[in-house]
Order: sequence, then structure tokens, then C-alpha cells
Amino acid sequence: MRGAVLYGPRDVRFEERDTPTIIKPADAIIRVSATCVCGSDLWPYRGVNPIPQPTPMGHEYCGIVEEVGSDVTSVKPGQFVIGSFFASDNTCPHCHAGYQSSCQHREFIGTAQAPVLRVPLADGTLVATPDVPSNDLVPSLLTLSDVMGTGWFAADAANVKPGSTVAVVGDGAVGLLGVLSAKHMGAERVIAMSRHESRQRLAREFGATDIVTERGDEGVERIKELTNGVGADSVLECVGTQESMMQAIQATRPGGAVGYVGVPHGVALDGEKLFYGHVHLHGGPAPVRRFLPQLLDLVWSGKINPGKVFDLILPLDQVAEGYRAMDERRAIKTLLRP
Amino acid sequence: MRGAVLYGPRDVRFEERDTPTIIKPADAIIRVSATCVCGSDLWPYRGVNPIPQPTPMGHEYCGIVEEVGSDVTSVKPGQFVIGSFFASDNTCPHCHAGYQSSCQHREFIGTAQAPVLRVPLADGTLVATPDVPSNDLVPSLLTLSDVMGTGWFAADAANVKPGSTVAVVGDGAVGLLGVLSAKHMGAERVIAMSRHESRQRLAREFGATDIVTERGDEGVERIKELTNGVGADSVLECVGTQESMMQAIQATRPGGAVGYVGVPHGVALDGEKLFYGHVHLHGGPAPVRRFLPQLLDLVWSGKINPGKVFDLILPLDQVAEGYRAMDERRAIKTLLRP
Repeated sequence: MRGAVLYGPRDVRFEERDTPTIIKPADAIIRVSATCVCGSDLWPYRGVNPIPQPTPMGHEYCGIVEEVGSDVTSVKPGQFVIGSFFASDNTCPHCHAGYQSSCQHREFIGTAQAPVLRVPLADGTLVATPDVPSNDLVPSLLTLSDVMGTGWFAADAANVKPGSTVAVVGDGAVGLLGVLSAKHMGAERVIAMSRHESRQRLAREFGATDIVTERGDEGVERIKELTNGVGADSVLECVGTQESMMQAIQATRPGGAVGYVGVPHGVALDGEKLFYGHVHLHGGPAPVRRFLPQLLDLVWSGKINPGKVFDLILPLDQVAEGYRAMDERRAIKTLLRP
Repeated sequence: MRGAVLYGPRDVRFEERDTPTIIKPADAIIRVSATCVCGSDLWPYRGVNPIPQPTPMGHEYCGIVEEVGSDVTSVKPGQFVIGSFFASDNTCPHCHAGYQSSCQHREFIGTAQAPVLRVPLADGTLVATPDVPSNDLVPSLLTLSDVMGTGWFAADAANVKPGSTVAVVGDGAVGLLGVLSAKHMGAERVIAMSRHESRQRLAREFGATDIVTERGDEGVERIKELTNGVGADSVLECVGTQESMMQAIQATRPGGAVGYVGVPHGVALDGEKLFYGHVHLHGGPAPVRRFLPQLLDLVWSGKINPGKVFDLILPLDQVAEGYRAMDERRAIKTLLRP
């Protein structure tokens, strides 16, 4: 089969890779219906993370089960399934606590930009849809593999409640779905921080009530102005830089909460500032497996349509253009069809 | 009157200071029944915080109201009162949210190691006891001004629940009262990290079920061993150094919570470690005013006896020895009687 391989900064190739097979009894093999490019893929793509050797890419996926190992009981060939970017056994203490992305036996899924995918710990990782979905539902189902679950976790970690005032830092797909999540959780006011018109439009469609175009200290000032000097109850940090993290912390009222899901790059938090900021801080790699059944219901019943974040759909062999378009911010998020 | 003044590292003097008077209509003047030395007083005492000029000291107090300003309605002369180390109006949005130590009009009380004290924002700050208490109750009442409320906030911020496994980093008075708080909140297991026998004894008396003497990475290992490799549900950080903070974060299970109340000195948290640690982080200067009525009930009814942390009681004129004894760890906490 042919799949995506990253060779170095801005050098993604579509080339021959071994077709995966069952290695362990808990594995499943998936015929991938759709995969995509993640904002976090851009870190190595831009050379911020080193690429010591040619590296297969992709961690978001949904598709049809082709084959399962001898231990697998919860999914079977022919079913349409979605799984998290971290495989998890869903039985260890961390999984039971709802932190499947810290599963004691977790394995990162890193080869999903391909037509066929091996998923370890299939029973714990995969969730089957009620039926094989129609094509128009696939983009929204695909988002449950990472980006929608991550936006949802950001809102959950930021303690969004009915009536909350919420600010969202970052207008990538995760941030936009953080807006959708906050709205769905009953937030009264959702302030999206964005300076890109197309993203502002989608943010409003997802439920944003206000747009703030300023960043850094000025962005914090605007949030304060919009909240009578108090700050937001909840802030979703969906970028992962020092500036975005400090923007999130400083825009939060004392006693409020920051949910952070942007993978931190070069972030160092000053203990004293954090102390006097009085905020709650929670985040990390989203335990999307926790939210998968609930979010699947919401997508299946048409209550949410997170697939709208895909504004570029390409055949998988054009994966390089998919990365380029996101890198240059021409696309919010690229869906790839094998 | 004569009170404590810090001149430089390890140089506390008991000397003439102006007797405070009503300055603003919201003020009250208190005849101090008891005050004490705080662990945080040791930072400037040890020269870690600079002392640019001779500085009056003390922020924990209880006593009898002598006089009130014309705006004060909630307390009156003759009443025995306790207040937080931050004066707060108790009406602003931050106070309403329960974060009185971030009150929009907060004022730090910094002159309490003296026989007479001016308390600003008296209506918002002071809570009167049902009667003038007997002498034996005064030490426990005094703890509600800071140290007991701070230990309680650490447990509250660390989300301690009935059945929780809790670890406490720091065996100063705050840490010990964190043990008491966690126990009172229903924790099943309370692991005190201490290598001092007298403090271990008090920790056990307050409800500790386990003692861990190791520190740093070894301390983390011991907590992991005691929790089947999982980590504690809640960890109370009651020191404020880089080592203690990392010890707290790493001893917490994914999805667990760190409540931190040690004033951070030179603490910088690595964003990536925090991200993959998956912990909840909350803390800051304790909003002891929030907890004061509830904790006053517990002390008044004899359900808790936090005053046991005072293992050295001195007349105020021996304040210098009070600091020395704590600095040299001969005393857990010094109570001073004017």
C-alpha cells in the first residue's frame, strides 16, 4: 500500500509502506474510510519537532474492520469503527478514571494516513457505529478520533457549565470545536479569539457570541473589557505556545479554569504568576475514548456537525498538498480519502 | 506600642511602632489576643525575599474589637474577631466567587505581630465568634486567620473527597493542617511526607495513615509503591519550592489534583511535563475568608483542634526567638501573646 511519510521539514511523501497485519491477538486491521491532517502534525512538519528518520504519519481515522486478532470480542469485520489516537485497554486504573490517553498500556497510533491501519488493544480502543454510515456523515465521525474529542475535553477541563462565559484561544479546528463544545455545554457567552475571517465565520456558526482579534496582552485586555474587568469563567487553550498559554491564564478570572490541549512547545509557567492568578489548570492529551460514545450519539442524531471543520477534502495521494494548505493557513483542516 | 520589625536576614526586632488608629470609615482597630509566625515569614527572614527597609511583620491575628470606623456595621467593640491575612470587601465578583484573597480591593495585613492592629474593610474581613472565647480556645481560633484555612484550601483545591487517597508534601503547620483537613473531608488514606519525628507524631494525631520519609524522585516512587503504581488522587503542596512542586505533580495520578499553597519561590513548570502528567492544578493565596464561618463552627464545637500546631508559645517581646525556633525547625509554629 501507499501512505504518508515525513522525511524532513515540509517534505511529506506519498510512498510505498508495508501493509499492516495482525501482530498481537488484541489487534484489529481497519480499511480506512477517511483520515486527516492534525494541527499537531504541523509541529514536526515545520521542523519544530526533530524528524530523525522517515516517519509514517497520521493518528486520526475511521473505517471498516477487515480482520481482528484472536482476543478481540467487541468489534468484528464489516463494522464501521472509530478509535482514539492513543490505543488504550480501557480496563486499567487510569482508563477507569477516564484518562484513557494515560492508559498504563497506551500505544500511540502514528500511521493512519494510509489505506490500511493496525489498531492495537482493539477492544479498548474502537467504538462501532450503529450501522455503516452514509458518506456525508463520515467527516463528522472522523473528528471523534481526535479533534472533536480534544475540543470537548478542553471545554470539560475548563469546567464549562450552563451560563458560563468562555474564551477560546486558538482558531484552528480544535479551537473551533472547543467553541462548539462550550456552546453545547450551555455556555451563555463564547468569545472566539481569531483574526481570520473564514474561521470567525465558522466560530459564529458553531456558537461564538463574540470575536476578539487582539492577541497577547491586548487580547487579555479585550477579554477583561468584555467581562466588566472580571475575566472569563473558562478559557480553552488550543495552541500550545508560551504566548497562548499566558493569554489563557491571564484572561481567566480568579477561581476560573483553563483547559489546555495545545501540545506545549517551549512553554514554562512561572510558579508565582500561576499562584496569584488563582486559576484552575487542567489539560493534556485528550482522553477522547471517554467521550466517544456520547459524541457518537450527538453526531449520529445530527445534533452536532463537527465535520464542518474540514474545508479541504483531498484524495490521500495528495497528502503533501493537504499539509501545505494547513501550514499556509489556506485550509482549517484537510480530510484525506484513501 | 511595641511590635515586630524585620531589619534584614535573621534580624527581627521588637521595637516602638506607631499605635494604629482608624484611617478610613471601613476600618476596625483590634486589641490582638494572639498572633503568630507564619512559614511564609521565613522567606524574608532567611533573606530569600529582599527586605529593602525595616518592615513590620505579621499577618495572622485574632482579638477584641476596640473601635470601628463610621461605615462598619457587622462587628462592634467588645467582640472577639478573626480575619484573613488579606482584607477583602466580600462583595466584589471575585469575593462572590469565593476568592476573597483576590478581592478587587484586597489589602494585605502585614503588621499583626503587635498588640494593636488596624484591619481595613472590616465588614468584609472580620468574623465574630459567638462569645468571647476561653483562653484554651484561642490558639485554634488564631489558626483560622491563615494556617488552618490554608491547609483546608489545599485539600479543597486538591479535590479531596470521601474515600480519596491523599498525599501531603510539607510537614510545616500548613501541611499538618492539610492532613487534618483531608481527614475531615473523608479521605481514606492520608500519606504525610515528613522526616521529623515530632511532626510525624502530630500528622498521625491529625489523621495520617502513612508516613513517607523519602523526598524528590524517591518520594514519588514511594507514593507510587503505596498506591499500586497509580499515584495519589490528591496531593497537597505546602512548601513552594521547585522540588516540592514537582514531587506533588509526579505523585498524582492522571486525572488527580494538586492543591498548592506554598508560596512559590523560583518555581517554573515545564509545559510538556504538565501536559503529559494529566493533573489538575489549583492553588494560590488561600481564600480563608470563604472557609472562616464553617471552620469557626468546627473549632467552636470542638470537632477540630488545629491549635495543636503551636508547639511554642512566647510573649510577643520574645518574637525574635519565635522566628529563630521555626527557622531552626525546633518549633513547628510559634504563637505570640502580646
